[in-house]
Amino acid sequence: MSLMNAIVLQDGEVTLQQVELPKPQAGQVLVRSLACGICGSDVHIARHYNEVFDFYRKLGMMPEGADNHVPVMLGHEFCAEVVEFGPETQQTLALGTRVTSVPILMSQNGAGVGVTPGVNGAYSEYFILDEALLLPVPDHLPPEAVALTEPLAVGLHAVNRGEVGTEDTALVVGCGPIGLAAISALHLQGVRNIIAADLQGEKLALAREFGATHWVNPGEQDEVAYAAEIAAGNRVVIFECVGIHKLIEGFVKRSPANATIVVTGIHTAEANINYAYATVKELDMRFSYYYQPHEFAQCLQELAESRVPWNKLLTGKVGMDGVSGAFKQLMQPNPHIKVVIEPWRDGELQTLN
Amino acid sequence: MSLMNAIVLQDGEVTLQQVELPKPQAGQVLVRSLACGICGSDVHIARHYNEVFDFYRKLGMMPEGADNHVPVMLGHEFCAEVVEFGPETQQTLALGTRVTSVPILMSQNGAGVGVTPGVNGAYSEYFILDEALLLPVPDHLPPEAVALTEPLAVGLHAVNRGEVGTEDTALVVGCGPIGLAAISALHLQGVRNIIAADLQGEKLALAREFGATHWVNPGEQDEVAYAAEIAAGNRVVIFECVGIHKLIEGFVKRSPANATIVVTGIHTAEANINYAYATVKELDMRFSYYYQPHEFAQCLQELAESRVPWNKLLTGKVGMDGVSGAFKQLMQPNPHIKVVIEPWRDGELQTLN
Repeated sequence: MSLMNAIVLQDGEVTLQQVELPKPQAGQVLVRSLACGICGSDVHIARHYNEVFDFYRKLGMMPEGADNHVPVMLGHEFCAEVVEFGPETQQTLALGTRVTSVPILMSQNGAGVGVTPGVNGAYSEYFILDEALLLPVPDHLPPEAVALTEPLAVGLHAVNRGEVGTEDTALVVGCGPIGLAAISALHLQGVRNIIAADLQGEKLALAREFGATHWVNPGEQDEVAYAAEIAAGNRVVIFECVGIHKLIEGFVKRSPANATIVVTGIHTAEANINYAYATVKELDMRFSYYYQPHEFAQCLQELAESRVPWNKLLTGKVGMDGVSGAFKQLMQPNPHIKVVIEPWRDGELQTLN
Repeated sequence: MSLMNAIVLQDGEVTLQQVELPKPQAGQVLVRSLACGICGSDVHIARHYNEVFDFYRKLGMMPEGADNHVPVMLGHEFCAEVVEFGPETQQTLALGTRVTSVPILMSQNGAGVGVTPGVNGAYSEYFILDEALLLPVPDHLPPEAVALTEPLAVGLHAVNRGEVGTEDTALVVGCGPIGLAAISALHLQGVRNIIAADLQGEKLALAREFGATHWVNPGEQDEVAYAAEIAAGNRVVIFECVGIHKLIEGFVKRSPANATIVVTGIHTAEANINYAYATVKELDMRFSYYYQPHEFAQCLQELAESRVPWNKLLTGKVGMDGVSGAFKQLMQPNPHIKVVIEPWRDGELQTLN
């Protein structure tokens, strides 16, 4: 039995362990992880694993018999290289080809790579992908850029859910990776008014580099009233990219008429709402979760064409023995946008300019 | 000073009073009320006037200085005849022409006829409309049919808000006037699967006459699961036409993926919701309030063309001295769908067929 390094989340603790090297089954390939982003949802699961797993169970997303102590091998934002083909594969890509993929195994009933217990993720040295879903990666794009395809696709999908027209005014509240990805997608779609809102001035400065045309600090000014003013009667689309459910209640109360609120955060706690405000203003609330394969491919293409300043998203790199410490840092207030794990090396979290 | 009969709502009591005959101002006409429907919202205001007026005040919909004791002259679902033209009018319609209108006065900053304190409604012998908004009514259509234009437009607007396609499956929960109006609109738009849900068997029977293709009693069977089964993977659009906010929470939990929930009730109480269900299923929640003039005109046209079995909606008629008693009956469980007031006569509530 061959062993490899993998980051395992169990009981809210993230540890480096030796686990069995997986074997590709029919239609699958074994890949070596070159880079994998740490997602906000990974940190959220580490912090709230009981609440999250209870919710997964209600939705039928937990394996039969798995309790909340089940280990999970994280990692769903990745670049990898093809190492071995399983049976019944086409093998049109050469061994060593660098690839990425939507983090789903259709060959295993839609199991989530880096999410479903029992399935390897890209925080491991090696993991399994479906051959049919592989996207080869342009040579000039470094692995850490490729790993950003996934969060960019989350942002693009949110924008598509909002059906934002070029004359609409978009208000993106929260300029973390998803907020910046949404701003980037809005910018590339030619939306005229893109308002970034964040409590941190540095994030607003960053939002401008991704295409924000206006910026507002909600600690100093009502960001929704500001958006309504800029919109001057045109439709306002508000993107909730913070992950705090109390914000939604406030958006419903403060939105102008006919606004759309796109919720990208996952809010497992019970929230309050007064629907009457939504009714008399005829609001739309649209919930956004998971991109389509074509949206994922579009984001990889945009990275390849240098249409996204991806290096501005990347604020840290870490080797395998540094991941546990990196999670501790990311659970506290911190200046990072995106930290990428390089599973082929060791090393503490290193902050990039 | 000329006086007329009017129904006045004050402190939750509905009484017949003598009030001043209004005078049409620039662009306005004085009309005589021929028939006016009692809307569920009229009964709701009578029951919860403190809550409703407090909410109107938060939205800036109450006149300056008006407290919750302010009298309101109800009536916004009507047929009327032109009695007198005010100054600066075109006078293209003859005196005596029978008309209806969206219940709004653009000439008074969008004041609501039968809603805004200080503005007459159609529960009065006479009231004021904008000349520019008048729709003449076909001769063959009786006043009590014309009065149904307004609730039909509420239902049509809800259907349009849901953007229901012919291959979608619509689930209409609650078969009162708005639910039946929604079913009628879905039917006239050629939607293939129209599921009526109601706890009362007689209402389900009625729903079939308006075009429901399937029916389910939520007391006996999970109506959302039933709709998902009928939809067989196609989109489900759920219409909340009951006015109980707890239902929305259940729809969010039970909806199939990618469903749309259209909320037509006005829920002024604080509600709970777990947004995570909405997120992982990528639901849309769309709030529907007030039709557009073209939707109102379309419903009048459909009535004129006998495309809606309007007489099935009409379950009672009452004269002016019977309105107070009728409200008392309508505040209790009752078999009525729509009761129409005939403000030109007296008489107790009379149940039809």
